[in-house]
Amino acid sequence: MGNPSILGDVLALAMLPSDSIPTVPRGLAKLSLFDWLVVGKAGSTEPVSRIVSDFIMEEGGEPQSSVFGLPLKLPARAAAMANGTISHALDYDDTHFAHVGHLSVGIMPAALAVGEAVNASGTSVLEAFIIGAEAACRIGITFGRQHYEAGFHQTATAGAFGATIAAGRLMGLSSVEMQMALGIVSTRASGLKSQFGTMGKPFNAGIAASNGVEAVKLASRGFISSDDGLSGPQGFIQTHSHNPNYREAWIDAPPARFIFEDNKYKLHACCHGTHAMIEALLQELHERPFLPNDVMTLTLIVNPRWLKVCDIKVPRTGLEIKFSYTWLASMTLFGIDTSNDATYQDALCQAAHIVDFSSKITVISDPEVSDMQTKVIITMKDSGRRELFFDLAARIPEAVLAERLRKKASSLIGSEIAKHIWLMLSSVESLSARDIAALMNV
Amino acid sequence: MGNPSILGDVLALAMLPSDSIPTVPRGLAKLSLFDWLVVGKAGSTEPVSRIVSDFIMEEGGEPQSSVFGLPLKLPARAAAMANGTISHALDYDDTHFAHVGHLSVGIMPAALAVGEAVNASGTSVLEAFIIGAEAACRIGITFGRQHYEAGFHQTATAGAFGATIAAGRLMGLSSVEMQMALGIVSTRASGLKSQFGTMGKPFNAGIAASNGVEAVKLASRGFISSDDGLSGPQGFIQTHSHNPNYREAWIDAPPARFIFEDNKYKLHACCHGTHAMIEALLQELHERPFLPNDVMTLTLIVNPRWLKVCDIKVPRTGLEIKFSYTWLASMTLFGIDTSNDATYQDALCQAAHIVDFSSKITVISDPEVSDMQTKVIITMKDSGRRELFFDLAARIPEAVLAERLRKKASSLIGSEIAKHIWLMLSSVESLSARDIAALMNV
Repeated sequence: MGNPSILGDVLALAMLPSDSIPTVPRGLAKLSLFDWLVVGKAGSTEPVSRIVSDFIMEEGGEPQSSVFGLPLKLPARAAAMANGTISHALDYDDTHFAHVGHLSVGIMPAALAVGEAVNASGTSVLEAFIIGAEAACRIGITFGRQHYEAGFHQTATAGAFGATIAAGRLMGLSSVEMQMALGIVSTRASGLKSQFGTMGKPFNAGIAASNGVEAVKLASRGFISSDDGLSGPQGFIQTHSHNPNYREAWIDAPPARFIFEDNKYKLHACCHGTHAMIEALLQELHERPFLPNDVMTLTLIVNPRWLKVCDIKVPRTGLEIKFSYTWLASMTLFGIDTSNDATYQDALCQAAHIVDFSSKITVISDPEVSDMQTKVIITMKDSGRRELFFDLAARIPEAVLAERLRKKASSLIGSEIAKHIWLMLSSVESLSARDIAALMNV
Repeated sequence: MGNPSILGDVLALAMLPSDSIPTVPRGLAKLSLFDWLVVGKAGSTEPVSRIVSDFIMEEGGEPQSSVFGLPLKLPARAAAMANGTISHALDYDDTHFAHVGHLSVGIMPAALAVGEAVNASGTSVLEAFIIGAEAACRIGITFGRQHYEAGFHQTATAGAFGATIAAGRLMGLSSVEMQMALGIVSTRASGLKSQFGTMGKPFNAGIAASNGVEAVKLASRGFISSDDGLSGPQGFIQTHSHNPNYREAWIDAPPARFIFEDNKYKLHACCHGTHAMIEALLQELHERPFLPNDVMTLTLIVNPRWLKVCDIKVPRTGLEIKFSYTWLASMTLFGIDTSNDATYQDALCQAAHIVDFSSKITVISDPEVSDMQTKVIITMKDSGRRELFFDLAARIPEAVLAERLRKKASSLIGSEIAKHIWLMLSSVESLSARDIAALMNV
């Protein structure tokens, strides 16, 4: 019958004083903001982005918050919906594997839209994002992988709770108002995985962000909701989680360590399930260079769950290449830039050298290999044998990560604008939320 | 793995030519519209109504659709959210027991908001409502009582699909666009029963209406969603229904008979679970009059599920009286008007004659008695014994129903305005949606 300590812990986290936020998540949050601005700008011309933008433009309303690609401001809730959708349109944003979802696209739009509307500081937007993301991680872990396997999309569901907390901090909600906002979003949060492959997937991120802003705005006006809509009887967890051990899955807050620190940034414009493989190959090429022609066979050993996701043997479109181990391995060995979204052209499906090389590749699964890991075994024509391994869980030093995110940004939005945004954010402490929002349309 | 025939049937129903709609549901829909306008007007000053209205006023936007109690128009989606919430604020709106929920408050606001925005005819608003309501009934039945028992609120969930279909007809969606709109709302529909007793309950109706308008507006712009978000793999039914026999529960469409015809109208401003009892007593008082003082004992026999809902033995507030068999039976015998919301004052909890009489009443349950039925056994001081019975499933003749709804309207919004609205709607065929919307604020 619910676990009052979950709500109590979530509220304690939501109301955590900002000076309790350590340095590591602050550094990562800045990278998240940079990366989010980049993928949002790059995604703003996608068809789904145009549709959602046109929809909120038709509604119009008070000029509160900026939207990627739009010359005017719109109400915070509408802006959050559009920016969540737009920034997830390319599916090139960050992933948190334990949360089972994408943190920035659901939470950052809510934080920035409200921050801009209330004229908050840039620092407080980042702090609100960190706390919202941390809560979304813990709530997502509590929902469990069962929630995801049952068909729910944590980005949208756990994400809506994180968006609520981030937006609530910026609105200056009291603890009781925050509790009511969490109650409101409990009856509002939604998002199904069966939308994957359609515009519904990025829209799910927009839903999370919009729901967060809506819940907070209603709570700030005295809306009385269920006391514990999250973990109470027939609350969101009991009705949606599908994880019978959700109480045990809850990680006590306030945090000794921020789980948000395990957030992963996409450095390749393809399915995250292929990234460990690409990284393993890139590392090997860097440390012990070889040519594709040296290879006799190449065997990939991956977690079983990826076989249903990104093992398209013969891709027919650029989009399918993003879900094809064989193509991506071949491309990496031939030096084709997998970080550039423009790489993924339909014509690449017919490129003779890629087609030829792909026949050398075998993909097998092993449950002992986690979904963040890949093993690669290469047999060389000279009889040499190489065993490679990469684990995305390994922390990339922040400076290296920053450098790679800047490279990704340059290929996505051009080096000049990427550099401008990077420089602006390097002194984020002196920026307002409105300064940051202005970067959406530089 | 889903049942394509459910989606196919829903689409066939959604696209049903208007001339296939028979007379009975048309007559009832007109009563639904009248009753909805009345409870909406009466609910417009409730605290939750003010909160949601202030929220959408702060957002502002294009003047498309009217809102109860507001002097200006707002975007259709915002108006639908507010009007859904406002019209359910008193919980005095219609109920469909098989659907397990309230039809008008989720669907009418979507139909009228879009109808007003596109300048549709009054007749087409009613037709769209009938089709949306019929679809919501069938979808709610397919979700099953298991969905409700698991904690979901059909008014919000099945209601969102009905709202989508109603709004989609008025927007003139093609069949493919309607399919996409149903896919969008599949990832957006939500609403938990754990909000009951809070502002979240009426808000759930607003969510349904808002989600319907949103899905339709996005679909009309070319949004591509899951092909079968409702009944496909990991669609809404599989993730939310909790009814393992949902395929068998589906009633083939297009309809031989409109299930909407079983819609029930609240004639008393209290829990619907008490209405069969009140009707049984009123009928007996009318046919074989007696005085409270003639009664020695009074036994109520009800469906077990109501014991947890409306058997508060000693109510402490006017609101609790609405969920108290003992108080409501006593009030009925003493001739107190249970149809007037103003009756339910806190002071009535201390009224000596009611307190005294309540001690004569026993409430027992019997699973053989349906949740629409009540048996009453009265033992008289003269040793006489009376057995009463009422079944809400019994159809009240439309003319009688109309008369009683007009009486309810008079007590709720005053006889003059009630009469004006009634007269206007009596020639609904000559009205536009905008004429109807104007009645919200006469």
